[in-house]
Amino acid sequence: MQDQNLKLNHSNITSNFWKRYRDLMANDSIPFQWDMINDNNEVEVTNDPFAAGGSADKSHAIANLKIAAGQVDGEFFGMDFQDTDVYKWLESAAYVLNYAPSAKLQKEADSVVDLIADAQEDDGYLSTMFQIEMPERKFKRLQQSHELYSMGHYIEAGVAYYSVTGNQKALDIAKKMADCIDNHFGTTEDKIPGIPGHPEIELALARLYEATHEQKYLDLAQYFIKQRGQDTEFFEKQNKADGIDRDFFPGLGTIGNRYYFADKPVTEQTDAHGHAVRVLYFCTGLAHVARLTNDKELKDAADRLWQDIIKKQLYITGNVGQTTHGEAFTYDYDLPNDTDYGETCASVAMVFFAKQMLETHMDGQYGDIIEKELFNGALSGIALDGKHYFYVNPLEADPKASRGNQGKNHINTRRSSWFACACCPSNITRLIASVDKYLYEVKDHTILSHQFIANNTSFENGIEIKLDSNYPWDGNIKYTISNPNKTQFKFGIRIPSWTLNSYEVTIAGKSVKTDLIDQILYLPIEDETVEISVQFNMAAHLISTSTLVKDNVGKVAVQRGPIVYCAEESDNASPLWLYKLDSKPAFKYEFQDNLLDGVGVLETNDVKKLEKNSSTDELYTFDKEKVVKKSHLKLIPYYAWANREEGQMTVWLHQS
Amino acid sequence: MQDQNLKLNHSNITSNFWKRYRDLMANDSIPFQWDMINDNNEVEVTNDPFAAGGSADKSHAIANLKIAAGQVDGEFFGMDFQDTDVYKWLESAAYVLNYAPSAKLQKEADSVVDLIADAQEDDGYLSTMFQIEMPERKFKRLQQSHELYSMGHYIEAGVAYYSVTGNQKALDIAKKMADCIDNHFGTTEDKIPGIPGHPEIELALARLYEATHEQKYLDLAQYFIKQRGQDTEFFEKQNKADGIDRDFFPGLGTIGNRYYFADKPVTEQTDAHGHAVRVLYFCTGLAHVARLTNDKELKDAADRLWQDIIKKQLYITGNVGQTTHGEAFTYDYDLPNDTDYGETCASVAMVFFAKQMLETHMDGQYGDIIEKELFNGALSGIALDGKHYFYVNPLEADPKASRGNQGKNHINTRRSSWFACACCPSNITRLIASVDKYLYEVKDHTILSHQFIANNTSFENGIEIKLDSNYPWDGNIKYTISNPNKTQFKFGIRIPSWTLNSYEVTIAGKSVKTDLIDQILYLPIEDETVEISVQFNMAAHLISTSTLVKDNVGKVAVQRGPIVYCAEESDNASPLWLYKLDSKPAFKYEFQDNLLDGVGVLETNDVKKLEKNSSTDELYTFDKEKVVKKSHLKLIPYYAWANREEGQMTVWLHQS
Repeated sequence: MQDQNLKLNHSNITSNFWKRYRDLMANDSIPFQWDMINDNNEVEVTNDPFAAGGSADKSHAIANLKIAAGQVDGEFFGMDFQDTDVYKWLESAAYVLNYAPSAKLQKEADSVVDLIADAQEDDGYLSTMFQIEMPERKFKRLQQSHELYSMGHYIEAGVAYYSVTGNQKALDIAKKMADCIDNHFGTTEDKIPGIPGHPEIELALARLYEATHEQKYLDLAQYFIKQRGQDTEFFEKQNKADGIDRDFFPGLGTIGNRYYFADKPVTEQTDAHGHAVRVLYFCTGLAHVARLTNDKELKDAADRLWQDIIKKQLYITGNVGQTTHGEAFTYDYDLPNDTDYGETCASVAMVFFAKQMLETHMDGQYGDIIEKELFNGALSGIALDGKHYFYVNPLEADPKASRGNQGKNHINTRRSSWFACACCPSNITRLIASVDKYLYEVKDHTILSHQFIANNTSFENGIEIKLDSNYPWDGNIKYTISNPNKTQFKFGIRIPSWTLNSYEVTIAGKSVKTDLIDQILYLPIEDETVEISVQFNMAAHLISTSTLVKDNVGKVAVQRGPIVYCAEESDNASPLWLYKLDSKPAFKYEFQDNLLDGVGVLETNDVKKLEKNSSTDELYTFDKEKVVKKSHLKLIPYYAWANREEGQMTVWLHQS
Repeated sequence: MQDQNLKLNHSNITSNFWKRYRDLMANDSIPFQWDMINDNNEVEVTNDPFAAGGSADKSHAIANLKIAAGQVDGEFFGMDFQDTDVYKWLESAAYVLNYAPSAKLQKEADSVVDLIADAQEDDGYLSTMFQIEMPERKFKRLQQSHELYSMGHYIEAGVAYYSVTGNQKALDIAKKMADCIDNHFGTTEDKIPGIPGHPEIELALARLYEATHEQKYLDLAQYFIKQRGQDTEFFEKQNKADGIDRDFFPGLGTIGNRYYFADKPVTEQTDAHGHAVRVLYFCTGLAHVARLTNDKELKDAADRLWQDIIKKQLYITGNVGQTTHGEAFTYDYDLPNDTDYGETCASVAMVFFAKQMLETHMDGQYGDIIEKELFNGALSGIALDGKHYFYVNPLEADPKASRGNQGKNHINTRRSSWFACACCPSNITRLIASVDKYLYEVKDHTILSHQFIANNTSFENGIEIKLDSNYPWDGNIKYTISNPNKTQFKFGIRIPSWTLNSYEVTIAGKSVKTDLIDQILYLPIEDETVEISVQFNMAAHLISTSTLVKDNVGKVAVQRGPIVYCAEESDNASPLWLYKLDSKPAFKYEFQDNLLDGVGVLETNDVKKLEKNSSTDELYTFDKEKVVKKSHLKLIPYYAWANREEGQMTVWLHQS
């Protein structure tokens, strides 16, 4: 086999579906968020789950940095992690600049880097709330302080911005922050044997290590991974020393270590529990550090947690985190649809975790989840206009319930412009803007194509792969591989689990019959030009759930290709719970150009509908069978719901 | 028609079912609660919904009164309505003394009356928290103070104790309290134009009026009914004047008038909303005052609210109040089974409301609800041992969910010994001890028998009615009416709606065919002795719910006679959601002496069960039909659930 360098150079997304979203990032979302963090927007903030905890009518995030930098006078405003809105904007901007160069945007981003450098203290510390309001409490209440979380987000942004623009200052700030943290944390006597209340620094340090190859950053990441859960009294001791009544968030002081996923060392953890985003950011860092250090115990822990989530706590859309109470996982097989949380950030984090798992193991299951999130659970977090966002992504919604039953009032039926805790908007934008990072995995003389988003991608050894598709609407994928140096390598194609192994692969017109290894079809490549066609069976499928899950008994969901569908009141007469799909319904698929910026729609006549009772009918009747009538049902992709008039929505439908 | 006096004299309950419960009151519940309020018990308090708001390891209720009376030194402890635990104990004791005379109990009760008299201020005021801790704030924060609520509960107790024992002091205290309130409240310039945050005083004053015939008490009751919702800024103004940050219950200051059912005058109210017990105590007073004053607007309001609750917000068990958030009603047709609240007090209050409605309108529907509560929703609030209580009564329970999902952790799967907010234990005991008050309604030369609990009842004109039955297990009811003066009157028999009009009535062996009027069969009586036999069809029925209710689509419940059944994990392999009843299942009924202190059990083989998946199975499968197998299901009465090992319970079952 030839010496080779399969390192990926650049991916250019050509997919209509994703180009629309990525143009939206460049032209709408990023400018809109820039105005938000600069307090130049007048937006109406509705249905904010954090309305009680703060106001979202202003961000003040840039202003906080200016005050910390001494550029202006003023008071800190916002969440203690308000800085991260700026950092995640910067990271998104970096990814946008990678595919949509803009002098204006780069100038704005450069100015942000300058401002951050200015606000950063000489020792590398940066957390504006502490600098402005309580410098004496730095690193003294880590359970709630979000200092390491905030700096972690900057490190991600700095690495991203440096790698796209070469802005050295952006990277230097990140290194200086990491050095500051390194100086303060560890198990030696002069350091704090601490961990962050909210993980993020672990994955950030692993990224920084990969950008700089400085071992100390990997060591520090490993420290935070391994230290978590070692001293279960750490937070309490710090809180006591800092003053027990001085919580930043009332109640978070006594909520217990489980909420922080800090109840035991990760090597002893068997299930995801507590605040979902904390768990998933931690798992991302865990999988990354486990791979980089080749630590079997950590790898096993990552595998275990992955399996728990995927097999026992994942909504069909990819959403995770079943409860609004603590934005948290609950317990295995608990998947209520009408009270779930499914935070957008948690779905984004699932992509991060899956990507790290995929880099460790070449296994199609991880690509399945990345795809599931990209086309469903994560994507539903942003409106088709790019300027409205969901924090919570339910599988079933009813405006009447959200208004009338307080146990459901975290479920918004309209996306909001902004939130007092504005973590989700910039998380979904940074994911969409970086979707090109989630197409290929390269390892061991293999290029794995695990997402079928149309693209042109070049590799450093001259290989070019052109992927043509009208995915996700069409299952025909065409690869044209140009391999000028006749490099020998294996080309892997993930076969999505939703195909139920119904697919056809041809190479140079000849059908390929090869057994899959972990859902991957491997093709040996050595020719100068190779054409591969893949056809996935795009039949609509009925999904049912393990009977260990209470809430989906007697119900089915519908999926076509990677897209999970839902029924909306805009298309179907409410209440939606009256529809009962037949056992084997035939669906008619049609792409509708003018609907919801272009979506594939499923319709069926193989459905019945229970007669709707009137308010003069009795609430309860005895020994009466319900009347059902033939009906018609129209389904749209889940990600596109709540872009028309407000109404009911459901993913799961009763079945006859 | 002869001159007559049909006034009821005394009812002696002979029913096995109710004698067991009433002996339990006399021998176990009342002594246990006496020890509780005197802090003589060592009980383990588990799963207390108010654990966060207070401690239930002691009551201190008697101690508070002693401190207020100046008998001992000490600090107030407990809820601001802690006094009511004593008053409701006294009221229960009065009813117990009516059927189980006891010198010991009467001595205890007399001593309580003496203590209360001692604690009462010269002007009649009594609320120990204010007297001990904040006399300057009396009547100054009515939204949360529970002063009128507490005194209302005493008035009820005082009237009851006087009527049973003739203890004049007990009544005098009540009158003095009412006078105190009369002196302070009203719309004239020198008075507070206020209303209580928690209704109760309205119904208490109406009772006091009926005991004393003093018009001022009825006028005052009417004032509180009519004043509610007139000045929607009243609470806020008082709170501001009292100091906005001095809430007794954090959050209750800003929760809004809807929660207090004080958002508009009752004549404009169309639906039950806000805190369920507040609404229902208010409605009880409303219906009572409306009848006593013959006020059509108030009567219409009571009818409207009754209809809303019965037709749109009532669980099949009689439980009401759908959410733990504010222990409140939610909105029409919202009846979730696994997050509901169904407070025991709310079910007890439904009996009070129904009784007032029945006194106003001779209509079987009100008797239906009294029966529903007595045998289901209210009764489930107490364990078979009389010393453990439910605060929350769900229609579906799963210990895993209660522990693992915070949105369900108000649902206890074991009854508790006591609660920090101990309203429910004494509410269910006062209902059970006074169940003899809920058998007959006398009006317009008519005696209506609306409950079929076996009893011997005497009337002041010499009529005696003996009702023999083994109700609720048996539908054969036998009346022997002894009418020595040959009084002419109508005897009404409620025909329960659950009979679906399948019943047989014979008088002196001859079948009676008479049209019902509002579910009541009327029989003219004039003979000296009359024997009436009634046979209700006791077939088990499948209940289904209006399709306007989301949560019961595809599900049925089972009722036999007045008893609503449930499946428990003790009898059926979990998960219970896997059972699917056939469309017309045949049930075998058997009374089991040794089960749950004797219960009628329903069993069927006309049921299938979904195959239980294992944890190695996929969470989601495509295009696979679920495997079902023939199975067997055993149901027990809902009221008796959670008296064996902890496990799942469900009232609603899937149907094929």
